[in-house]
Amino acid sequence: MIRKIKKSFNKKFKTFSELGYQTKVGEAPGTLRYIGEKSTGFQRVDIIQYNENQCYESGAIKDSWIPHIQKISQPCTTWINIDGLTPIELIEKVGKHYQLHALMLEDILNTHHRPKFDSFEKAALLISKMLRYDDENTCIISEQISCVITDSTLITFQEIEGDVFEPVHQRLRQSVGKIRQKKANYLLFCLLDAIVDNYFLILDKIGEEIEALELQVINDPQEKTLQRIYHFKREITIVKKAVIPLRENISAILRGSGNLIDSTTELYFKDLYDNIIHVAEVLEMQRDMANNLQELYFSHLSNKMNNVMKTLTIISTIFIPLTFVVGVYGMNFDIMPELHWKNGYYLVWALMGVLSMVMLIVFRFSRWL
Amino acid sequence: MIRKIKKSFNKKFKTFSELGYQTKVGEAPGTLRYIGEKSTGFQRVDIIQYNENQCYESGAIKDSWIPHIQKISQPCTTWINIDGLTPIELIEKVGKHYQLHALMLEDILNTHHRPKFDSFEKAALLISKMLRYDDENTCIISEQISCVITDSTLITFQEIEGDVFEPVHQRLRQSVGKIRQKKANYLLFCLLDAIVDNYFLILDKIGEEIEALELQVINDPQEKTLQRIYHFKREITIVKKAVIPLRENISAILRGSGNLIDSTTELYFKDLYDNIIHVAEVLEMQRDMANNLQELYFSHLSNKMNNVMKTLTIISTIFIPLTFVVGVYGMNFDIMPELHWKNGYYLVWALMGVLSMVMLIVFRFSRWL
Amino acid sequence: MIRKIKKSFNKKFKTFSELGYQTKVGEAPGTLRYIGEKSTGFQRVDIIQYNENQCYESGAIKDSWIPHIQKISQPCTTWINIDGLTPIELIEKVGKHYQLHALMLEDILNTHHRPKFDSFEKAALLISKMLRYDDENTCIISEQISCVITDSTLITFQEIEGDVFEPVHQRLRQSVGKIRQKKANYLLFCLLDAIVDNYFLILDKIGEEIEALELQVINDPQEKTLQRIYHFKREITIVKKAVIPLRENISAILRGSGNLIDSTTELYFKDLYDNIIHVAEVLEMQRDMANNLQELYFSHLSNKMNNVMKTLTIISTIFIPLTFVVGVYGMNFDIMPELHWKNGYYLVWALMGVLSMVMLIVFRFSRWL
Amino acid sequence: MIRKIKKSFNKKFKTFSELGYQTKVGEAPGTLRYIGEKSTGFQRVDIIQYNENQCYESGAIKDSWIPHIQKISQPCTTWINIDGLTPIELIEKVGKHYQLHALMLEDILNTHHRPKFDSFEKAALLISKMLRYDDENTCIISEQISCVITDSTLITFQEIEGDVFEPVHQRLRQSVGKIRQKKANYLLFCLLDAIVDNYFLILDKIGEEIEALELQVINDPQEKTLQRIYHFKREITIVKKAVIPLRENISAILRGSGNLIDSTTELYFKDLYDNIIHVAEVLEMQRDMANNLQELYFSHLSNKMNNVMKTLTIISTIFIPLTFVVGVYGMNFDIMPELHWKNGYYLVWALMGVLSMVMLIVFRFSRWL
Amino acid sequence: MIRKIKKSFNKKFKTFSELGYQTKVGEAPGTLRYIGEKSTGFQRVDIIQYNENQCYESGAIKDSWIPHIQKISQPCTTWINIDGLTPIELIEKVGKHYQLHALMLEDILNTHHRPKFDSFEKAALLISKMLRYDDENTCIISEQISCVITDSTLITFQEIEGDVFEPVHQRLRQSVGKIRQKKANYLLFCLLDAIVDNYFLILDKIGEEIEALELQVINDPQEKTLQRIYHFKREITIVKKAVIPLRENISAILRGSGNLIDSTTELYFKDLYDNIIHVAEVLEMQRDMANNLQELYFSHLSNKMNNVMKTLTIISTIFIPLTFVVGVYGMNFDIMPELHWKNGYYLVWALMGVLSMVMLIVFRFSRWL
Repeated sequence: MIRKIKKSFNKKFKTFSELGYQTKVGEAPGTLRYIGEKSTGFQRVDIIQYNENQCYESGAIKDSWIPHIQKISQPCTTWINIDGLTPIELIEKVGKHYQLHALMLEDILNTHHRPKFDSFEKAALLISKMLRYDDENTCIISEQISCVITDSTLITFQEIEGDVFEPVHQRLRQSVGKIRQKKANYLLFCLLDAIVDNYFLILDKIGEEIEALELQVINDPQEKTLQRIYHFKREITIVKKAVIPLRENISAILRGSGNLIDSTTELYFKDLYDNIIHVAEVLEMQRDMANNLQELYFSHLSNKMNNVMKTLTIISTIFIPLTFVVGVYGMNFDIMPELHWKNGYYLVWALMGVLSMVMLIVFRFSRWL
Repeated sequence: MIRKIKKSFNKKFKTFSELGYQTKVGEAPGTLRYIGEKSTGFQRVDIIQYNENQCYESGAIKDSWIPHIQKISQPCTTWINIDGLTPIELIEKVGKHYQLHALMLEDILNTHHRPKFDSFEKAALLISKMLRYDDENTCIISEQISCVITDSTLITFQEIEGDVFEPVHQRLRQSVGKIRQKKANYLLFCLLDAIVDNYFLILDKIGEEIEALELQVINDPQEKTLQRIYHFKREITIVKKAVIPLRENISAILRGSGNLIDSTTELYFKDLYDNIIHVAEVLEMQRDMANNLQELYFSHLSNKMNNVMKTLTIISTIFIPLTFVVGVYGMNFDIMPELHWKNGYYLVWALMGVLSMVMLIVFRFSRWL
Repeated sequence: MIRKIKKSFNKKFKTFSELGYQTKVGEAPGTLRYIGEKSTGFQRVDIIQYNENQCYESGAIKDSWIPHIQKISQPCTTWINIDGLTPIELIEKVGKHYQLHALMLEDILNTHHRPKFDSFEKAALLISKMLRYDDENTCIISEQISCVITDSTLITFQEIEGDVFEPVHQRLRQSVGKIRQKKANYLLFCLLDAIVDNYFLILDKIGEEIEALELQVINDPQEKTLQRIYHFKREITIVKKAVIPLRENISAILRGSGNLIDSTTELYFKDLYDNIIHVAEVLEMQRDMANNLQELYFSHLSNKMNNVMKTLTIISTIFIPLTFVVGVYGMNFDIMPELHWKNGYYLVWALMGVLSMVMLIVFRFSRWL
Repeated sequence: MIRKIKKSFNKKFKTFSELGYQTKVGEAPGTLRYIGEKSTGFQRVDIIQYNENQCYESGAIKDSWIPHIQKISQPCTTWINIDGLTPIELIEKVGKHYQLHALMLEDILNTHHRPKFDSFEKAALLISKMLRYDDENTCIISEQISCVITDSTLITFQEIEGDVFEPVHQRLRQSVGKIRQKKANYLLFCLLDAIVDNYFLILDKIGEEIEALELQVINDPQEKTLQRIYHFKREITIVKKAVIPLRENISAILRGSGNLIDSTTELYFKDLYDNIIHVAEVLEMQRDMANNLQELYFSHLSNKMNNVMKTLTIISTIFIPLTFVVGVYGMNFDIMPELHWKNGYYLVWALMGVLSMVMLIVFRFSRWL
Repeated sequence: MIRKIKKSFNKKFKTFSELGYQTKVGEAPGTLRYIGEKSTGFQRVDIIQYNENQCYESGAIKDSWIPHIQKISQPCTTWINIDGLTPIELIEKVGKHYQLHALMLEDILNTHHRPKFDSFEKAALLISKMLRYDDENTCIISEQISCVITDSTLITFQEIEGDVFEPVHQRLRQSVGKIRQKKANYLLFCLLDAIVDNYFLILDKIGEEIEALELQVINDPQEKTLQRIYHFKREITIVKKAVIPLRENISAILRGSGNLIDSTTELYFKDLYDNIIHVAEVLEMQRDMANNLQELYFSHLSNKMNNVMKTLTIISTIFIPLTFVVGVYGMNFDIMPELHWKNGYYLVWALMGVLSMVMLIVFRFSRWL
């Protein structure tokens, strides 16, 4: 049990030097180096180009990616999605093709970056965390997604395959809603919206865990219950670390930083902002509930302990005077009249019976029982 | 008992996926979908049109609503109240008729939205929570009310039938105060005022609960008392979640966001703002009192426990030396002079009497008794 | 004892519905209704008119008040003080005469309003709390005072007779300082100054109570000591609720809200502001001291308990091995050589004496005694 | 011991009415009245006049002070230092001579004023606290120093004789650094610098006390240790009350309030500001350390208590089964075969030996011993 | 053990007077005096001059430093690094040569200064802390580094030899990246980047310590574990004191204070700023984890204690009734029928067996066992 917790701690908090920070110390800024733990070496590029009338989709492994771009000659929006950050050569090539700043690429390759928004000359960069719940290991998996956005192009970088964007793909293909009529910034909104909608599902899982813990605390609190509460508070911290900076970033975008949004998309980003605030508030409430649970746990535990101690002490206390009485008549004095009474023995039993009844009544009366 | 608490927890905190979030993930923004748990399928539209001279009232079930509008040809203010959000077709129709933004309708249909204020081109949207105390289940019922306001029209959307607006209706019918001379923004103020006045009644109920808990903690603290305190803190959290964002929203309206108010209604909104701040402060004070109660509970409990332990330990301690004494004279040594003394037995009793008196005096002197 | 605490709780925190909120729900704003608990039906109007040369004072019961105004024909400042808010007809008359806004009158009649400052077209309203210490019931009495100020008139509304303004009266009569040369805003300052000076006396009483509690906690902490600490923390909360909003209000006045002050009176209000900050800081410090007292109380209590338990346990522990020894020689084996030794009995006593000495030394050495 | 603590509390927190607040209630603002407890009736005026070439120093008792001013005919800076605030006639005379505002003089005479900075027409006023450590009574002595500054004059008012300005005097006399070339505002900086440098020495004393307490807590925690920790936290509060407002004041001066500083002295005030922030940070850290100490104290205490209880309980538990065994063979049944065994007695001893060994091993194995 | 902790405390928190503050009190500002504890008397000057084409490096002991400057006649950037602050003559000479303000030099010599950024007329000063982990003494070593930056020159002052800048040296020599093409402000960024990268390694060490403590707390919590947790919280405080002010400083530089950065270097400083925020957030999280650990420790401890007490009490409670039973049959009454029963003795054993079984079952059933 403990071994398992220990391991899961490890998995979540790799040391910075294991992640490659040690070799990075003092390196020239903009030096590209992959920092992360999910590298599989697998890489895939997916390109979708669309305008109101057309939607052309193509996928490729590794560097055969360039020929696929610009299949549509008319003005269109291009979404390039890249799964897998190593080998870094592909990232470098993309950076070169779109003239991305070296610092931008450095941030994209550092998968332990906190969510950030930064606007460079030619493009803006938004880094956020995609959270999924791993039912098998009952833990939250966080994957970094970096979005580089220019006027007509959105490039997304993901650490591993698999994401939450399938519904967006569907809407692009089937031209559901206004997605095909709008520009890259609306596409960015759609992706962020999908990410934030997934945060709600994570909140759900956390909520279920709270309920399970609540039942456990009320019915049968054990030491490992407390460890689960701690584990659980840590998970809330992880989600918070993804949500709070994203809130700041969306707020910065809304304030006009990076000239990313126009008046028609502003409404959508405002709505997204409201959703993130909602997530943050629910998280805050869940943290409070976790703290309450912890207090409840300690209270239940000490209550249970007190009950044990009290009952046992009462038993001892009733028998101690009785033992004294039987001790008295075990004495060997020559002259002890009671010993020779005919009903002495039975009277002693009666005395002890009365004594214990009186004590029980006193205890009862004092509400100790 | 515990089962009941468990159930009431469930009732309040439905998971997001049960509420329909799961299917909503990745959907196009503005897609209308009811998110909530109070849907009964019943719908009703009430229309009141009034100006200084006239007041025409009409009600209708479902989509027969349109013909009722514009019975008064002169300039007038129209208040359309809709009870029941499903089926959503009605909401869609209303949105179409008044050209409301799709995002606005989406927010109205999501009954788990936090209170918000947003101004769109044609109209402004204010979402707030109407709180009522359910005496039967001793819990607070929260119902979302969404107000869409344009220059001359106020549309309110409620989840279920029944609200706190009856006095406003009366004032409209009987032309009490200035309500018939003023525009839709004054009507909005009146509704909000009625909502906030109800918050005070909720505070009352919470205050009564505090007093009851206080008595219980002082006189007879039990484990379930603590659970009631936790339950109670959670209720305060629910009210707070309704009040704090509303305060922000009214503040935004006062700062001129949405051009909702003019100089004559500003005073009223200021007054409303003061009331909400008062509610927030009382809530804060009640939360502090709940925390104090909790501390008092733990203190009383440990005090009671300590008293039990102390008294019992004292009893044991008095008898332990006495038991030792009687043990001594139960020994079987050949030569034990005391055993053959004439008054040996009575002397031992005297000795034990003195011994226990001394111990009682020492205990008394040390303030342990 | 407990009954008394209960009652004092009640007295301070009347429910909102008892105060008249329930009937107020949904009423037209500006509807005049007395909300409070100090209504005696007694009303009195005092009018002082003064300029640099003259000071004319007059008092009246109820509505015979108007003829008394404007006895001085030259430009002068008028201070109208009204004791008693019911019946509300008088308040309405005053409002009519000075064309006061209905919302203003509503706030004046609600004696549970938090301190506020609001400027209307014709006048500004400052609501604050006058605190006095009731030595008999050892509690703080809070009375609301509402000041309506126009250019040349100051109207003050008090709930009951009796206030802290006698020194100001004296200064007006005897023309001490610059009070007669200045306008109504300086008079307002003088009244507020008197109110704030009284806050210091309240702080005094609280300080004395802290000292008394400190002695009690150190010398003889009892359960009711804790209740007094809680009672005391609640008192600090009451004072804080009067002081903090007043600080905000004076700050608003200093920032020029309501055009209430000119450059010559600004200095005085600044000074007043400093005093209020001082009061707030002392309150904060006293709250910390109350929390420290509480911790000290718990520490003393558990210390005392531990001492009891420890000593008693030590006594038990010494006698338990001795009781074992005497038990040994109470056994009835046929062959037990010690029983037949000549000095067996005395040797056992010696053994037990040595045993208890050794244990006492070990306890002493381990610093348990 | 307790008596001593009690007294030191008294000394530090005189009631406001003892300090003269009671008589002050409602008095005209600007009425001069000494509020404080250090009045000795002794007064002394020291005047230093200097410019780059000359430095003329003179001292006088009481009102013979005026003739000493203006000994240097050339433009010069004058520093007037006044020790002792009573009798207040001298203060009044100084105020008249330099046309100081009455409120300014009132603040100077109130030695319980919080540090403040206020600029009046003719002069600016800075009130701060000079802290010194009284080694004899091991407490911090706080003395108020009020600085009135005009273009070419600095007047400092101190409560009692003795200050931390001797080094500044030396520098003036010997023209060390730029002090003689600069104006009054640089002199003010020098005095404040000396005051703040002394704060560091106070921090030192607090730091030493922390170390002493730390040793005491780790080696031999006693009840009075806790009282010292509380005493110590109170001292930190006192220092904080002197430092935090001064920080605000210097910040206000830096923001240009009162036009006190020019570009050449700004650098010095910035440096001073950095030092005060440093003091505030160290204080914050020391407060945290005090809280940690307190926790450590409670942990040590309960640890010690637990050890006592555990060991004693173990002893009892070993002997209880043994006492049962010997009780068995003290029974008087007619037929008890063991009693008649030849080695019965010795076998019982063996049994009891084995029993206690087993229990010790079990305890050891369960890590309870 | 305790002695060791005590010593390490001493090492970290030297009193201010030991550091030379006492003699500094009241001294003229700008008086140069070394305040610190790492002075070895050893001093070394290293000069690197570079432009895009050339890089000339030279080192010197003490004051033979001037001739080495300006070896390159063309426009170039000069980096002067000084190890060792005493004797202060060298610092004075450097100050004179570059016309640095006296206050700047004073700050540089005070190695207990908090990180600060200040811009003077001719140069800007940035003081920050270089943290290294001393594996031997398992503590964090903090060294102050002061950077004086003018247009073309960067002067760095370090307390002792040894730093984290070797990689920067390498990049300068080998012209890696753009470092040789850029000005002094880019060099400053490179140094700060190296410092902040080292902060991550410190976070690593802290993280490892948390894991070790976590294992210790879960498996075998001891008193010294708690002391390690306290020690550890103190280390986090030290790192925080280095990081938080640096964050403010970089923020001030980004806001344009001191005109230090141009548009091309701004991006780099922004990146640096993000990294520092990341460090601060991780620190905050680690502090929370330390607090959780502490709670877990107390919970484990009290759990362990409770288990001991419970088991021991149960043993006692089982034997107390048995002892009573054997006491009964040790009584010496003339008439005690059971004593003469043939199987009396065996029946008593049976009775006692049943009695203990019943008690065990009750305990088990009540979940106390």
